[in-house]
Amino acid sequence: MIHPVRVALVGLGNVGRAFLDLMISKADVLADRYGLSLVLTGAADSSGAVMDAAGIDPMALASHKARGGNAGNFLIGVPGMHACKLVAQVEADLLLEASPVNLQTGQPGLDCVRTAIGRGMGVVLANKGPLVHAFGELTAAAAAAGVGLAYSATVCGALPVVNIGQRDLGACDIRSVAGIFNATSNSILAAMARGGSYEQALRQAQLDGVAEADPSLDVEGWDTANKLVIIANSILRQPATLADVQPVVGITSITAEQIRAGAAQGQVVKLVARAERTEDAPDLTGPEDLSGLSRYRLSVQPAWLPTDDFLASVSGWEMGIVFDTDIMGLQQLKVDERGPLPTAAAMLRDVINMIGDK
Amino acid sequence: MIHPVRVALVGLGNVGRAFLDLMISKADVLADRYGLSLVLTGAADSSGAVMDAAGIDPMALASHKARGGNAGNFLIGVPGMHACKLVAQVEADLLLEASPVNLQTGQPGLDCVRTAIGRGMGVVLANKGPLVHAFGELTAAAAAAGVGLAYSATVCGALPVVNIGQRDLGACDIRSVAGIFNATSNSILAAMARGGSYEQALRQAQLDGVAEADPSLDVEGWDTANKLVIIANSILRQPATLADVQPVVGITSITAEQIRAGAAQGQVVKLVARAERTEDAPDLTGPEDLSGLSRYRLSVQPAWLPTDDFLASVSGWEMGIVFDTDIMGLQQLKVDERGPLPTAAAMLRDVINMIGDK
Repeated sequence: MIHPVRVALVGLGNVGRAFLDLMISKADVLADRYGLSLVLTGAADSSGAVMDAAGIDPMALASHKARGGNAGNFLIGVPGMHACKLVAQVEADLLLEASPVNLQTGQPGLDCVRTAIGRGMGVVLANKGPLVHAFGELTAAAAAAGVGLAYSATVCGALPVVNIGQRDLGACDIRSVAGIFNATSNSILAAMARGGSYEQALRQAQLDGVAEADPSLDVEGWDTANKLVIIANSILRQPATLADVQPVVGITSITAEQIRAGAAQGQVVKLVARAERTEDAPDLTGPEDLSGLSRYRLSVQPAWLPTDDFLASVSGWEMGIVFDTDIMGLQQLKVDERGPLPTAAAMLRDVINMIGDK
Repeated sequence: MIHPVRVALVGLGNVGRAFLDLMISKADVLADRYGLSLVLTGAADSSGAVMDAAGIDPMALASHKARGGNAGNFLIGVPGMHACKLVAQVEADLLLEASPVNLQTGQPGLDCVRTAIGRGMGVVLANKGPLVHAFGELTAAAAAAGVGLAYSATVCGALPVVNIGQRDLGACDIRSVAGIFNATSNSILAAMARGGSYEQALRQAQLDGVAEADPSLDVEGWDTANKLVIIANSILRQPATLADVQPVVGITSITAEQIRAGAAQGQVVKLVARAERTEDAPDLTGPEDLSGLSRYRLSVQPAWLPTDDFLASVSGWEMGIVFDTDIMGLQQLKVDERGPLPTAAAMLRDVINMIGDK
C-alpha cells in the first residue's frame, strides 16, 4: 500500500530543483522500499508561489524553472505570493525549506518554519538560516506540536553528520569536534596548492559555477560557522548562535607563498571548524555534563595540518568531520560530493525517516 | 519522568561485562538525556543464569565475573540454566545478546533471539551468529511481532555502519561497498609492516590480549565475512549467507617480504571486504533494483592498495568503510577504537534508539 505524503517546497534554486528531480528519479524507490509517494502540493520562490492540492508535476515545474520561468508564472501560480503565505494555506504534510541562507535574520525561512509548525506540518530544512537564528525556539515548538523537524541536509550535504551525532553518538561524551564543512573554500585552497593566487582560484571557481558571484559566505567562513552552530545546538547540546563562534576567519588572506612554504614543511592549510572544551568547562564526568551546561569553545579559522592528519586528507571537493568521544572511539568521516543533488538527497532522507518514524 | 526498561543480558564476556559497566557509568546520561533507566532482570553465561524481576546489581555482577565467578553461582543464580531458558522465563522488555559467535550454527544465540521475539521482546545483538545464519527469518519475525531488532554493534563496533547504510543511505543505489572490518588482522599487518613475521606479530597480539588463543575467526577472514554478510542483508537488500562470500581469504599467507616489497612500490596490504556489482547484475536503474534482485559479488581477501587510498589510511586499530552511491556521493568512514567498550556502547545506542522510537 502506498502512503501519499503531501509536500510543499520553498526555494527553487539549485537544491530545490534537484529535489524535484529526485521526486521523479526516486519515485519507484520510495514506493518499493518505503511505500511512499510524494505529492507536491505547493512551491514557492522569490517570485511567487504555486499551489494545487491535486498535485503539481515536479518535472514540469523543474523544466519551467530551467527555461527561466518561476513559481509565480507557472500554470496557476500567483506572482508575488509570499512563501509564508503559501505555507499558511497549502494543504501539505511537510514543508521542505531550501531557500537561500539569510545570515542577518534567517528570513523568510524562519517565519515559514514557524508557520508550518503552527499548522502541524513536519519540516525538513536545507536552509541553515532558521536554525542558526532560532534553534531552541524551533525545536521546542516542533516538540510541543508533536511534529518532526529534520535538518540533516544543513551540515556536509549528504554526509549524515547531524544524524550520527544525535542518534548514534547520543550517549557519548563528545570531547571535541573538528571539521571541514565548506567545499568551495576547500577546493579553492586545493587549486592554490596546485599553483596560482587566491584571486585566480576564486575566479576559476566562479567560472566553473561553483563559487557564488558573492562568495563571502563561503570564503569568509560564515557558511562553516553556520554549520558549527547547528552542530553545537543539535549534537553538543550547547545553545549557541553565530556570535558564539570566535573567531570566524576565512581563507581570503592566505597566499600561494604560504601554501608553498607550508608544503615544504609537510603541512597543508585547511579552513577548520572546531568545538573544544573550554578550560573552565565544568567537570564533564560529573552531573554538570548532564544539565546542559557543557561548554565548548567554537571557532572557524585556517589551520596548518600535517599531511597525514585525517582532515588534511579531506581534499578538494570533500567535506569531513572528526568526533572524539569517550565510549565510541575516534570517528572520522568524509564525503566527496558535487553539485546540489546530494544536499537534496539528504532532504529526501529526512522525509523518509520522518514519515517512517510515524 | 524516568521510564524503566528491563533488560536481559546473554553473554558475560568482554562485551557483556563492558555493557554492565556502561549501565553504571551512563546511568545519569540515560536518565537526563533520554528519561531511561535500565534494569537488569536477567543474565546468562555458559555456566548458567541468574534472574531477578526486582533487578540485579550490574556492578556486583561485573565484580563477581571479574573475580572468576559466573552467572550460575552469583547470588540466586542457577548453575547449568541454559540461556534460552532464561530468555523464555525472564521478565524483560529487551534481550541483549552478546554471546560468542558460533559460525557453524549461530547457536545458542539464534534460539535465544527466536524465543525473545516470540515473547514480544525487542532484541539488541552484538553477536553476529544469529544474523549470519537467519537474517531473513529474524527480521521477518521481528516485523511480524512488532518488536525491534537492532544490531549496529555487529559491524565495526561503534562506527554506525549499519545505521548509516539503512537509514541515511536508504534511498541510494549503492554501487559498491569496500571495508576493513577486523581490527585484529589490521593491527597484525601493521605490526608486520613495522618489521617481524606473521607469527611474531600474531604472538604479540595474543600476549597483548588482543588476538584470541584461536585467532582463526579473525586472521582467516571469517569475522570480516560475517560482517559483510550482515551488510549485504541489511543495507544492500541482498539475501546472503557465508556461502555467498567467495573467496574468503585471510592474512595468514602474507609474508614480511611481500609487505616490504609492496612498501617499496608505494603499496600497502589490507584485508578488504568488498561488495561489487556482478557483470550480469540486472539493470539497476530499472524496476529490477526494487524487487530485491540486485546482486553484488561478495569477497574477502587481502588487497594491495596505494598508500593514498582511503582504506590504506585505515591503520592499526582502525576499521573503516567506503560507500559509493548514486545520489549521496562517496562516503568514507573510519573509527579508531580499542577494547570491548565501544561495541558495548553500540548496544547501548541500539537500546536508546529502540526505546526512543516507541
